[in-house]
Amino acid sequence: MCGLPVASGVAFDRETPIGQNCPMPDLTPLFFPASVAIVGASSNPQALVNRNYVRTLLDFGYKGRVYPVNPHLSEVMGITAYPSLLDVPEPVDYVVCGLPARLTPGLMEQCVAARARMVSLYSAGFGETAEPERLELERTIADIARRGGVRIVGPNCLGVHNPSAGVSFESDCRRDRGIVSFLSQSGGNARDLIRVGRQRGISYCKGISYGNAADLNEADFLQYFAADKDTGVIGAYIEGIKEPGRFLDALMQGTEAKPVIVLKGGRTPAGARAVNSHTGALAGEREVWDAICRQRKVLQVEDIEEMADIFLAFSYLDPPRGRRVGIIGIGGGSSVQAADDCERIGLTVPPLPSALREELKAFTPLTGVGLSNPIDTAADVYWDAESYARTVRLVAGFDGVDMVFVVIPVIYAVMRGTHVLGEQVEAIVRVAQECGKPLAMVLRTGGMVDAETAAAEMREHCIAARVPVFPGVRHAARAVHHLAWYYEKRSVE
Amino acid sequence: MCGLPVASGVAFDRETPIGQNCPMPDLTPLFFPASVAIVGASSNPQALVNRNYVRTLLDFGYKGRVYPVNPHLSEVMGITAYPSLLDVPEPVDYVVCGLPARLTPGLMEQCVAARARMVSLYSAGFGETAEPERLELERTIADIARRGGVRIVGPNCLGVHNPSAGVSFESDCRRDRGIVSFLSQSGGNARDLIRVGRQRGISYCKGISYGNAADLNEADFLQYFAADKDTGVIGAYIEGIKEPGRFLDALMQGTEAKPVIVLKGGRTPAGARAVNSHTGALAGEREVWDAICRQRKVLQVEDIEEMADIFLAFSYLDPPRGRRVGIIGIGGGSSVQAADDCERIGLTVPPLPSALREELKAFTPLTGVGLSNPIDTAADVYWDAESYARTVRLVAGFDGVDMVFVVIPVIYAVMRGTHVLGEQVEAIVRVAQECGKPLAMVLRTGGMVDAETAAAEMREHCIAARVPVFPGVRHAARAVHHLAWYYEKRSVE
Repeated sequence: MCGLPVASGVAFDRETPIGQNCPMPDLTPLFFPASVAIVGASSNPQALVNRNYVRTLLDFGYKGRVYPVNPHLSEVMGITAYPSLLDVPEPVDYVVCGLPARLTPGLMEQCVAARARMVSLYSAGFGETAEPERLELERTIADIARRGGVRIVGPNCLGVHNPSAGVSFESDCRRDRGIVSFLSQSGGNARDLIRVGRQRGISYCKGISYGNAADLNEADFLQYFAADKDTGVIGAYIEGIKEPGRFLDALMQGTEAKPVIVLKGGRTPAGARAVNSHTGALAGEREVWDAICRQRKVLQVEDIEEMADIFLAFSYLDPPRGRRVGIIGIGGGSSVQAADDCERIGLTVPPLPSALREELKAFTPLTGVGLSNPIDTAADVYWDAESYARTVRLVAGFDGVDMVFVVIPVIYAVMRGTHVLGEQVEAIVRVAQECGKPLAMVLRTGGMVDAETAAAEMREHCIAARVPVFPGVRHAARAVHHLAWYYEKRSVE
Repeated sequence: MCGLPVASGVAFDRETPIGQNCPMPDLTPLFFPASVAIVGASSNPQALVNRNYVRTLLDFGYKGRVYPVNPHLSEVMGITAYPSLLDVPEPVDYVVCGLPARLTPGLMEQCVAARARMVSLYSAGFGETAEPERLELERTIADIARRGGVRIVGPNCLGVHNPSAGVSFESDCRRDRGIVSFLSQSGGNARDLIRVGRQRGISYCKGISYGNAADLNEADFLQYFAADKDTGVIGAYIEGIKEPGRFLDALMQGTEAKPVIVLKGGRTPAGARAVNSHTGALAGEREVWDAICRQRKVLQVEDIEEMADIFLAFSYLDPPRGRRVGIIGIGGGSSVQAADDCERIGLTVPPLPSALREELKAFTPLTGVGLSNPIDTAADVYWDAESYARTVRLVAGFDGVDMVFVVIPVIYAVMRGTHVLGEQVEAIVRVAQECGKPLAMVLRTGGMVDAETAAAEMREHCIAARVPVFPGVRHAARAVHHLAWYYEKRSVE
């Protein structure tokens, strides 16, 4: 095991061998359970466990067997309930537990007796409180599980998100299977990724919220996604590293196979302290972490928003041949800003050749416009969908650019009505499909509610046509920079 | 005059003396015109000049005399129109011109003959095209104006925004007089600031969009706002510097009197090129610019969004005594992120003393929460407005924090209905008014349309109570960092 100075946090001392030859646990019953028991399910629509788990299984049309467990109820949402896990008529693949922490040792004993395979503990109040007796409680349940052959996700987590298998804790998501799988130590971040993804156009393959990681941890999930043939991109929100050696092995497997994007929580002193009271993990040393990420070509991000931007880019854009962007928009100030945003992050915005500028001039009134790059086009061109698309087509056709950003200031477009906006978006989408280069749409809303509403509708058109939409050029530039960086690094290997 | 290597761009060679003793032009007729003529006004509701200027004067209830000028119309929106400026019955203070560029020399001759005082040229197609004959045209009109004692704003600009005087180019703004005045070389950025300001809660004192700056330039406006007793904060979007010596003088006057926030467009090669085709200015050398900004305590920003964040902070927050923040929110992952966001930018998030933590524990269930700082509170507390407010009050009362950020994840709150959200916001607002420390609200929407809609409503409550609202902790932290930096620098002078 590597002597990496990353703390092992409050994990129980695992007796199974750790390191390169550690066998990968079989997580099939977790991600594709044939049966699910929800312990603590109730008929109260406000009850979190009920709302998030039973309701979601129904919403998703989960095809397996569902067993609500509650000694006080005979049915939950029309499904027969059982007084205890021991009464359920089969060994259950995936048990979700919403009981208070103090009741979890009893439940774990029942899981062992009932030969359940995976238990996800929504229950909180363990190691994250930093109270000695609660740390002890976490060790106790992990110990019962290990001795009985049951694997734990959590505690203090939301568990599995696998829309294709009909299992999740959040219905408000895209149902089609995407290429991105995520692991998140934080339940809130996991849910944010899903809900923001629904809005932004990110469909997930699989996801896991794993909380305190008393048993299964980041190494297990990273390794699983690295080997998973349906997962094309891995995103990880990690607070602490439980088993540094196994984690490094998993990171190597992951980054060799596919892009791995990591948001490390607790990179500042206060952040590290917050980590400690969140999932009980200790945040690793910053410099070591950064060195590993550089070595392993990990795409490091600073927040969930940046992670979502990159998920979007990898989900919808082909690898660009280089870093040269053509930008088409309207407005002088925002064109200057767009150019600054791109070059600041390491993309280039090359001038257009004079022959191409002449072609543009042939149909673009010159008043107050810029036809170099960015193109700050004329209002007459901008408001005529075909002329605007023609401009985009000409720029995309230029050999000197590797990709194209098209900016639509929805903040003003809404004044003309969404009809015009719709025509514009449709025309650009056609160019995107024909031009053979990565094309990203930027819909600027300025946070105005009417513009956000219109942009949400336009975004769906774009996503259906596989054109990603970003809220600003800075977002698009940052995402594409990561995309380009990943393929550059891979090509020199 | 200082030998600063900042190009003078395409400005005409001014014959008036330049430098420290250059008299400040009287801009009263520009910002407080007794009469306005709109040349090119029409009754077509789609015509930009008409829509933006005549309509806006009516919307604002402008008290002066309005003279639409159009040889083909006898009235515009019920106001008597005149065939030419020479037919208008008085010398006009402020002329707005929407004529095509080629007609502007004739108009300028008329302005001189009619003894107009200020002319704002919405007309574009001058120096920004980089075509020699159009550069010459810009020189020609500036020359006519200078010889005839008329001053020009623009060309290629939107002109004056002064809601208190009833004059603007944009009706979609807050009408009450704020403390922020802005100058913007870009019309789009000027309009963005106003519209985003309406949404975010920023009321302006005055603003000017000045485009190519053929005559009046950034030095004039900066100097005017520096001396303006109603202006408490100056924001500037600047692409090129026309008169470096006068600009430095004005910057000194401005920064000595009040906070000056500058967004410099064209800081990268492509950005500088875009500047050239936007307003025809040449962007200055980056290092010199940065040195001046450091010396003069200018708050430099990277985009309009950051500028808006700072406007908000200066408009609503008292100077913090230090950089120590107390953060109250819900969610472990987002608490970790909040701490990282604050400390990364240079604020500190100190741990809370154990006595205070005990006070919090007395009414906060411990399960899955963090009570150090950030406070990641329990759902029971979070959803009970009074308990949540009590938590905020206790943290705000701690001597070891200088300011407080309260985070509400509207992205989830909307699921409970806006009623609960409203109670929460009201309770927090009361704490803000009593606690005697700067308190910023953070409403996280994740870009969801329903959450944005709810947040917009909550934001108005907060703004009415003079509590600023930011879309994320990162935004609040960045804005407060600038605020703290400004007062720190000022205190060591």
